[in-house]
Amino acid sequence: MANSMEIFEQWESEIRAYCRAAPSVFKSASNAKQVDENGKEYVDFFAGAGVLNFGHNNPKMKEAMIEFLKEDGVAHSLDMYTSAKRSFIEKFVETILKPRNMKYKMQFTGPTGTNAVEAALKLARKVTGRDDVVAFTHGFHGMTLGSLACTANHYFRNAAGVSLDNVIRWPFGTGKNYMESLEDLKAMFNDPSSGVNAPAAFLVETIQAEGGVRVGSLEWLEGIQQLARDLGALFIIDDIQVGCGRTGSYFSFDGTDLDPDIIVLAKGIGGYGTPLAMTLNKPEYDEKWSPGEHTGTFRGQGLSFVAGTKALDYFDNDELMNKTKKHGEYMSFFLKDLAEGNDDVEVRGRGMIVGFDVTDGDKAKAIARECFENGMLIGVCGSRGEVLKFIPPLTIPEEDLKKGLEIFSDAYKKVIG
Amino acid sequence: MANSMEIFEQWESEIRAYCRAAPSVFKSASNAKQVDENGKEYVDFFAGAGVLNFGHNNPKMKEAMIEFLKEDGVAHSLDMYTSAKRSFIEKFVETILKPRNMKYKMQFTGPTGTNAVEAALKLARKVTGRDDVVAFTHGFHGMTLGSLACTANHYFRNAAGVSLDNVIRWPFGTGKNYMESLEDLKAMFNDPSSGVNAPAAFLVETIQAEGGVRVGSLEWLEGIQQLARDLGALFIIDDIQVGCGRTGSYFSFDGTDLDPDIIVLAKGIGGYGTPLAMTLNKPEYDEKWSPGEHTGTFRGQGLSFVAGTKALDYFDNDELMNKTKKHGEYMSFFLKDLAEGNDDVEVRGRGMIVGFDVTDGDKAKAIARECFENGMLIGVCGSRGEVLKFIPPLTIPEEDLKKGLEIFSDAYKKVIG
Amino acid sequence: MANSMEIFEQWESEIRAYCRAAPSVFKSASNAKQVDENGKEYVDFFAGAGVLNFGHNNPKMKEAMIEFLKEDGVAHSLDMYTSAKRSFIEKFVETILKPRNMKYKMQFTGPTGTNAVEAALKLARKVTGRDDVVAFTHGFHGMTLGSLACTANHYFRNAAGVSLDNVIRWPFGTGKNYMESLEDLKAMFNDPSSGVNAPAAFLVETIQAEGGVRVGSLEWLEGIQQLARDLGALFIIDDIQVGCGRTGSYFSFDGTDLDPDIIVLAKGIGGYGTPLAMTLNKPEYDEKWSPGEHTGTFRGQGLSFVAGTKALDYFDNDELMNKTKKHGEYMSFFLKDLAEGNDDVEVRGRGMIVGFDVTDGDKAKAIARECFENGMLIGVCGSRGEVLKFIPPLTIPEEDLKKGLEIFSDAYKKVIG
Amino acid sequence: MANSMEIFEQWESEIRAYCRAAPSVFKSASNAKQVDENGKEYVDFFAGAGVLNFGHNNPKMKEAMIEFLKEDGVAHSLDMYTSAKRSFIEKFVETILKPRNMKYKMQFTGPTGTNAVEAALKLARKVTGRDDVVAFTHGFHGMTLGSLACTANHYFRNAAGVSLDNVIRWPFGTGKNYMESLEDLKAMFNDPSSGVNAPAAFLVETIQAEGGVRVGSLEWLEGIQQLARDLGALFIIDDIQVGCGRTGSYFSFDGTDLDPDIIVLAKGIGGYGTPLAMTLNKPEYDEKWSPGEHTGTFRGQGLSFVAGTKALDYFDNDELMNKTKKHGEYMSFFLKDLAEGNDDVEVRGRGMIVGFDVTDGDKAKAIARECFENGMLIGVCGSRGEVLKFIPPLTIPEEDLKKGLEIFSDAYKKVIG
Repeated sequence: MANSMEIFEQWESEIRAYCRAAPSVFKSASNAKQVDENGKEYVDFFAGAGVLNFGHNNPKMKEAMIEFLKEDGVAHSLDMYTSAKRSFIEKFVETILKPRNMKYKMQFTGPTGTNAVEAALKLARKVTGRDDVVAFTHGFHGMTLGSLACTANHYFRNAAGVSLDNVIRWPFGTGKNYMESLEDLKAMFNDPSSGVNAPAAFLVETIQAEGGVRVGSLEWLEGIQQLARDLGALFIIDDIQVGCGRTGSYFSFDGTDLDPDIIVLAKGIGGYGTPLAMTLNKPEYDEKWSPGEHTGTFRGQGLSFVAGTKALDYFDNDELMNKTKKHGEYMSFFLKDLAEGNDDVEVRGRGMIVGFDVTDGDKAKAIARECFENGMLIGVCGSRGEVLKFIPPLTIPEEDLKKGLEIFSDAYKKVIG
Repeated sequence: MANSMEIFEQWESEIRAYCRAAPSVFKSASNAKQVDENGKEYVDFFAGAGVLNFGHNNPKMKEAMIEFLKEDGVAHSLDMYTSAKRSFIEKFVETILKPRNMKYKMQFTGPTGTNAVEAALKLARKVTGRDDVVAFTHGFHGMTLGSLACTANHYFRNAAGVSLDNVIRWPFGTGKNYMESLEDLKAMFNDPSSGVNAPAAFLVETIQAEGGVRVGSLEWLEGIQQLARDLGALFIIDDIQVGCGRTGSYFSFDGTDLDPDIIVLAKGIGGYGTPLAMTLNKPEYDEKWSPGEHTGTFRGQGLSFVAGTKALDYFDNDELMNKTKKHGEYMSFFLKDLAEGNDDVEVRGRGMIVGFDVTDGDKAKAIARECFENGMLIGVCGSRGEVLKFIPPLTIPEEDLKKGLEIFSDAYKKVIG
Repeated sequence: MANSMEIFEQWESEIRAYCRAAPSVFKSASNAKQVDENGKEYVDFFAGAGVLNFGHNNPKMKEAMIEFLKEDGVAHSLDMYTSAKRSFIEKFVETILKPRNMKYKMQFTGPTGTNAVEAALKLARKVTGRDDVVAFTHGFHGMTLGSLACTANHYFRNAAGVSLDNVIRWPFGTGKNYMESLEDLKAMFNDPSSGVNAPAAFLVETIQAEGGVRVGSLEWLEGIQQLARDLGALFIIDDIQVGCGRTGSYFSFDGTDLDPDIIVLAKGIGGYGTPLAMTLNKPEYDEKWSPGEHTGTFRGQGLSFVAGTKALDYFDNDELMNKTKKHGEYMSFFLKDLAEGNDDVEVRGRGMIVGFDVTDGDKAKAIARECFENGMLIGVCGSRGEVLKFIPPLTIPEEDLKKGLEIFSDAYKKVIG
Repeated sequence: MANSMEIFEQWESEIRAYCRAAPSVFKSASNAKQVDENGKEYVDFFAGAGVLNFGHNNPKMKEAMIEFLKEDGVAHSLDMYTSAKRSFIEKFVETILKPRNMKYKMQFTGPTGTNAVEAALKLARKVTGRDDVVAFTHGFHGMTLGSLACTANHYFRNAAGVSLDNVIRWPFGTGKNYMESLEDLKAMFNDPSSGVNAPAAFLVETIQAEGGVRVGSLEWLEGIQQLARDLGALFIIDDIQVGCGRTGSYFSFDGTDLDPDIIVLAKGIGGYGTPLAMTLNKPEYDEKWSPGEHTGTFRGQGLSFVAGTKALDYFDNDELMNKTKKHGEYMSFFLKDLAEGNDDVEVRGRGMIVGFDVTDGDKAKAIARECFENGMLIGVCGSRGEVLKFIPPLTIPEEDLKKGLEIFSDAYKKVIG
């Protein structure tokens, strides 16, 4: 029977979530469209939670992956050397690192963001010999115990069942008074009777995506970086959701003075939705690793390397990034216009990540559901799910972009009135 | 330049490990063979650390994956419903669960073993409201902070940089005196002044693979299960490395009275080396989850579902499992014969996981290196890397199996004399 | 040999500290004077670290203690009932609790401040079922692991050797911007994605004594109390050093709207320097205790009850408290006058606790040493020992007060110039 | 009103415990007798929980204390030098340390056992740079968070409200199979994949008093000591309850090859029930302390030094210790005789600490209550309060000893039949 969901309801865990918000069985997908088993089309503003920057089933990647499969490329290699992995590294070095004069060492971890965050935390603790890490309100860094301790959302934290230790929490640099708050933090770290130990690292997102599309102040981010330097702590940017081109440049902090000691990447780097995760470690810190101290079975994924290499072609020139900026501005403009006159709504973002904050989680959920009914996929984020998060593929055709926004506009008007 | 490793040495993290033991660049692979860029062939007794139970680039899976790619199947879906996912669930239910009268709920986590272990620990703590978990000497359960706390190896543990809490450690059920040791543990848990809190769970491998191919006593395992029942704790089997057919049956504990509350699977279930991880939760515990309490971006991998579904075909009849048993016995016989007369060598295992313990890590390493030079890949395990671990694809052709063993035999004789 | 210190140097632990700053062997003491074995007299502005509010060897207490000894009173009773304990309780109820309409239950813990703080923390965690406690920069609450986690000073914290968990640290309410900082804290606790769990308690000193005689803003303290109420957390005042009359009233917060759920007392309540510690618990929380859940061998000290009962006579009328206020004002006036024109010096305090902050720990130490040489005992406090702390007995004769201040004045001028 | 308990019930915390078992108000006490306000006499086999080794209101101590009070001796000095402290140190060195060729440094901590245990743990962690401590089932070491983590009893542990970390728990060396269990522990510590880190210390009582008068096997204790040496860990004996002469020699381990790195003393050393606690640290470890790293307000108690010095006179010759052995043997003989034929009763102990284990906590409680009614004080201990603990003053007159035992005998017969 087409589109039957019974088997899931009967045999899959009660923990399933997105399928409750979008109760359909999806059969195929292409660039910014998903199609369910009944043939209904959806414009995708969710993009696999920010993974599919280059669209569903990107044709060039698909072609390369099929070729790789046919030629019996090494699909799974842990950290053994393979031709596919070398191609990926070479491409990343030439396209991303060298043009920026970056000298990072690439560390492939288990292929999920949380594995990479855990690796970054270990390295920072190893380098400094310190326990504590500073993480920020509304931050999201993953679900395994080490990264979960850094994640701010209580719903996730409460599921740990144990105390989440060794994290110092501080307000994120957005909203108001964040520079005063940074001064407070500095004062604490500079006082030998503050009760706050010098940290191993500061772990920060430049734009908190899950946290509600909160854009960090650059002045504040630079202040955090300077504080890390002053304290001998590592400055780690988690660019998992807003890196890989999302904001209109490869890294979310390109063009600033931010110079992180470790950059954490996942989601978009595998290109096709194929799992891959990586930390970029400054060599002077990377050399503190002993071989195999942090491992993970699936850290050498051939298909991800192949698709990921193709994804990097998009950064050979400015075309996609320029389009990303242009489309991002259009989205922001459209949504701000829509929200005009409603003081309960705030639109935030940069490049092609835009948050539409309606203050109220129930309303946001109702809007998202209405969008789903009308053929558009969009997720919610923020402390209470009160922010609709617009993260379509960067490759979305203009007509799909417009169509999605129209569906959203109608849903917003219907729900909010 | 063919086979150049320079790019890795220059740009990849110092943490890389397997590539140091097998310094070659691999270009292609097929069933139990890997080929490097110089055209040199290697018989593979490593199988991607126990992932490739069905061989490299299994033809049927490959065909299905290419088809799936061509048809624009949904490659990445988080926990939304997809046709590919439903096929996998249906196949798993029909082939694995129903014939065993098992009623587990399937929970797809982030696609690595450690993510699944973290999920299992969370669920056990949630269900019981308790903090501590009992784990065993030589156990290996992953590298993220929650699972790492359960992992026994100090090399990995020391890299955490923080205290690994909430785990009670006890000797594993092998060797000698393990039943007395179990009695001690029981006595402690039954004494209100033992200093050991009632645990949330017992987390155990039936055969400790990374720990040195240590085969747990069935009597002991049943004793642990009973103790868990008596204490209201969950009994969790981590079948990541020895499940999926490795021992000659789908689960390593098939045919016994072991009835785990949670089973953790990863490695082999994605079939092709494509990442997938899953816990099987008894429904009465699974229902304690609230939606989305434990998530992970890559928990809906289309290619893994497609390949994994094909992998399950191998369990439609007994052919592969019978062959696995037969080949396993042959391996054990061959290796025991080889070790004959050397009291420093012990051969252990079941089905197609066999450990060849030479007592001395340097010797084991030397043998593995000699094998590599002569065209065979094999890894080491155990507390000091003193055990050579034989885990070829279950689908290995007999001639490759024999060839690999011969190469090993020569290497052993050369190194040990 | 009179005044020989050799035996201490040879046989006592290297951890000894005050004796290094005041290297003499003291033989006798009376009210605000100590005499060493060479007959040299010292005016005592240290008062046993704030214990001896009623002077050394207070005659009325001494008399009562001798009488008690002669009559074979029960010197040590754990928490069995004794006549001496009942007298203390009755006196405390009549003199302190009833006039203030307070309904606290008195809990006698092991007779040191840290034992009482540990009890308060346990009760707060028990009542709320929560783990974390909010404590503040520069706070001092003791040296055992639970209270040490709340203590801010790194020198003490670093000696723990283990991670000090379950404490949320925030700036104390003094200096500048503390109300903004309080707003930040509120915002965090009211946000379900702040990463900061609702706490079991807020633990605060109204005046941080060891922390450098930092006087908490009343507005801020009331804000903290309100926040505790709003969050269902307990509001705990540690009045160990500034209670028992030190500020010119029995509790440091008398006359305010502060209404703590638990008050922690020690130091001065035993009267004679005889150990005693107590928490005052609101009955609705106290009843959550089960018998004997927190114990301590020396929690029933007959001599401390006898002396402590006599100490409470001082609160039958206003005489001592009025004198305390008057002398406190005189101390402050004198010291501010002395500091006049030196921008590096700040004088802070209330009642008879006054801090003279010279910014520089070495200078403070030099002044204290000069005072010692000239017959005056004074201690230092603050993050770097930069604050001279004036806490003479409340009963100090005016001439001793003046003499001590003169010695200090000379020392200050000699060291600072 | 004589003997009124109302004031306690109304104003004292619900946590009170011993007073519920012995509901009377005690007015005076002398050697092994306590008298309540109604004039009823009780023979004291409880001795203030093992504090009053030299009886209530020991006349020589009393005389010295009164003299000290009259002469205005320094009652409270923190760690400043005083004449009274020097006398105590000299006496302890001459009487206890020198005759045993011991070279320990004496560290006075806050005057309760738990404070001293916390100090010992800090020093061990500081010396070794390690986190974990090995403690044993049924061990009791105190109630503050660091020592409580080492305490085994769940009733006490559960009151902590937070996770008690950094302790490895193992079966204590008594009963059966303890040497096998020690072998298991050794094996774990010698295996780099055991999951058990090398510890900072082993913390052990030679006889577990609160734990139920469990006498540790000497062979086992020596094995633990050797294991500590082999691992570079400190061997700490907590002699708080069974030191100071209780077993018939000053230390409970006199005459054995046990040579602890740290000895923890409290309870009996203050002599009169006056609080005092001390660790004896081997100099090579003690020198790792920096001044003031572990402090405590009441660590210089003049009255305790004076009484404690007098107490040491009892160790100038063998008289008291010989009597202790003789009376201890008599107690054991009497109680074994009483238990003759009842398989549910076991008598254990050494010197004048004897446990009478009736297997059942309710029965033990009933016996103790019956004793109380008939003029004898005795406490219970053990996992479920199933052991009656005989710890009268060592100075108990023979007639009181016999009288107490007779009362007990009657109560036992009445309850058990």
